[in-house]
Amino acid sequence: MACAAQLAGGTLDAASLLTGTYARIAAQDGALGALVARLDLPTALAQLKTLEGPLQGLPVAVKDIFDTCDLPTSYGSPLYAGAAARSDAAMVSAIRRAGGLVIAKSSTTEFAFLEPTATRNPNAAGRTPGGSSAGSAAAVAAGLLPLAIGSQTGGSIIRPASYCGVTGFKPSFGLLPTAGLKCFSWSLDTVGLFAVSVADVAWFAEAVSGHALALASAAARPWVVGVPNAYPWGAVSPSAQRAIAAGSQAWRAAGAEVRSVDLPAWMNDVFEAQDVIQGFEAWRALAREVDQHPQALSALLREYLLAARHITAQAYEAAQHTAAQARLACADWFTQFDVLMTPSAVDEAPAGYASTGVSTFNRAWTLLGLPCVNVAGAVGVNGYPMGLQVIGAPRADRQCLQAADLLERALRLPA
Amino acid sequence: MACAAQLAGGTLDAASLLTGTYARIAAQDGALGALVARLDLPTALAQLKTLEGPLQGLPVAVKDIFDTCDLPTSYGSPLYAGAAARSDAAMVSAIRRAGGLVIAKSSTTEFAFLEPTATRNPNAAGRTPGGSSAGSAAAVAAGLLPLAIGSQTGGSIIRPASYCGVTGFKPSFGLLPTAGLKCFSWSLDTVGLFAVSVADVAWFAEAVSGHALALASAAARPWVVGVPNAYPWGAVSPSAQRAIAAGSQAWRAAGAEVRSVDLPAWMNDVFEAQDVIQGFEAWRALAREVDQHPQALSALLREYLLAARHITAQAYEAAQHTAAQARLACADWFTQFDVLMTPSAVDEAPAGYASTGVSTFNRAWTLLGLPCVNVAGAVGVNGYPMGLQVIGAPRADRQCLQAADLLERALRLPA
Repeated sequence: MACAAQLAGGTLDAASLLTGTYARIAAQDGALGALVARLDLPTALAQLKTLEGPLQGLPVAVKDIFDTCDLPTSYGSPLYAGAAARSDAAMVSAIRRAGGLVIAKSSTTEFAFLEPTATRNPNAAGRTPGGSSAGSAAAVAAGLLPLAIGSQTGGSIIRPASYCGVTGFKPSFGLLPTAGLKCFSWSLDTVGLFAVSVADVAWFAEAVSGHALALASAAARPWVVGVPNAYPWGAVSPSAQRAIAAGSQAWRAAGAEVRSVDLPAWMNDVFEAQDVIQGFEAWRALAREVDQHPQALSALLREYLLAARHITAQAYEAAQHTAAQARLACADWFTQFDVLMTPSAVDEAPAGYASTGVSTFNRAWTLLGLPCVNVAGAVGVNGYPMGLQVIGAPRADRQCLQAADLLERALRLPA
Repeated sequence: MACAAQLAGGTLDAASLLTGTYARIAAQDGALGALVARLDLPTALAQLKTLEGPLQGLPVAVKDIFDTCDLPTSYGSPLYAGAAARSDAAMVSAIRRAGGLVIAKSSTTEFAFLEPTATRNPNAAGRTPGGSSAGSAAAVAAGLLPLAIGSQTGGSIIRPASYCGVTGFKPSFGLLPTAGLKCFSWSLDTVGLFAVSVADVAWFAEAVSGHALALASAAARPWVVGVPNAYPWGAVSPSAQRAIAAGSQAWRAAGAEVRSVDLPAWMNDVFEAQDVIQGFEAWRALAREVDQHPQALSALLREYLLAARHITAQAYEAAQHTAAQARLACADWFTQFDVLMTPSAVDEAPAGYASTGVSTFNRAWTLLGLPCVNVAGAVGVNGYPMGLQVIGAPRADRQCLQAADLLERALRLPA
């Protein structure tokens, strides 16, 4: 990261960087609507002096689904509007320990479900930034801040990253801590990261996790990239086809073998199991909210929860069994290739702000717990960002990031 | 469970059960010190009317490391004393959805670490109840309530259950939700349950999890029970030997084969990795507390954290690698037997209240994420409870509970 290197080299100081960040936010976020709360600058400058660690005081935005004790924590809901949490989420603590300065909360859809935020897409005028991590994706894509965190239960990291044209990393399930994140579905909720490049997001991930994830150098190996022929959850749109073609060409130019693969027969079961598990758990996780304050929920969420209450324990158990078997099968399946490449979303960002789009291309990988990276650089038929999703083998987060980095660099080369 | 059957059969009503529970608490908890906060009876009776589900309004105690929005949530620390959380932990929500009535918070050691609580052991006068889930174990062991929840990062479910002579169940890692539990170590923190028998705890686990765990009938199969010859973390005390002898005899009387097994060579690495991972993550999870309020922490915790800050990312990554490899190896290792049986703790509860005891017999299994049940019924050389730990194969929670149920019944038969 350029600014991190300048900080390390002494050609930039963290206080100046912070002041510049606040100036950008003041100039741009009124129209963008990415941030819903922030420290005042003197408080941020004072906190800066208490930090040490590899992030060197770099400013970080935290999706407002995570608890913070010095910033309001609203979970995107009027039920929690305006108050700070009693303690920091573990992930916020980890950022602090890595030397990151959490200066702002970024917008989230209500409880990280589907009700749109007021956030705009900086790279697709008039189109949704996606969700649920709308503010984090938009803030980094617009250059307000270099780093942000979000969460994904269906497609809430990869989809907004795709729509906004920015790097999003959903690590393996459980790699980053969810404690202090408002729960929607405990078998699915996954903490993820945003940055402007794969190298940056890998470096950020290493700093906050302790796992060796930063990219030491361009990986030299004969990569085999699997590209699914078809998906049980729907057709591949013209924009997605165009992105896959660009991605495949870039991979080949980088010396990789692109191999057409069939998704296993169980993949549609996994896709459907994600929906069952999410609904069953959300009905439990949000018990008090829907029982005591149903009118304070959006109709979208309220109706979703009231429908989800009818999911039986038997259906849930069967879905969990499907997921467990598929997770075991993944290790074998991934011996045929190093990584998969798929569209990150159905299409470019949908026009308008009435919907945050759908997560069909993300749900199965979330339930499988596989590492996923949105690689930006390709565009759809209207010229808006259309991301490529690089999916790694179980627990192979570093390899997934290496592959994504290679793809990103290849996409950026002149054709 | 007798009272659940009476509720279902109409020979007991939930309001009478609740009133009786409050009377027992009023009579006994002053001396026991298991509960640190509770609803007043009229509030509890009013909540009862809003509940439906298999738990039928049964009263439940929740370890005060979980957030509750209508009861104070202190995490065992003066830093958080007395205030309610903004929302319920996902596990508290799940209890509510199952029809359980959370009437009380039970004592926890400070942030679920080692500083003793004021709780007494109802089955070993003058001896610690163990920790960190001290209040939950003691409350159920004393018969104040039928059900309670706790958490385990090292040995915080199984150890107090062993010391207090009550059933404790630490499910597979991730089976029950940790969101809304104050994080100590996100790779280890595991939600667990207490009840007076294995059948009850299995029924409770099914009700709150949606997984099929309740024991339909006594399992009829030729069980093979592995009993380790020796442990890299220390010798087997005379009390533990005595319990293992009683357990082995009970197993054989029940028709099982008891097989002496060697622990794999990697087991000591797992044991040591648990310590590294716990320390590395705790230093991050409790950043704000130790940085801003070091004097509000116990010396025990403060010194632990300040030492843990020196654990390197390299050591953490190596420990995580050890854990990941060992988890994969477990599936093969468990083909030699159905379950393992080990002592639940080093010994009977230590005399006095200066220490909550040690978790040496629990740490490796916690890091491996294996289901564990403390089976009560055996005693040590001084006649105090000395638990037997039944350990199941990866994700085989139901089989682990079935085996533990069989052992419990066999231990209760006259010799």
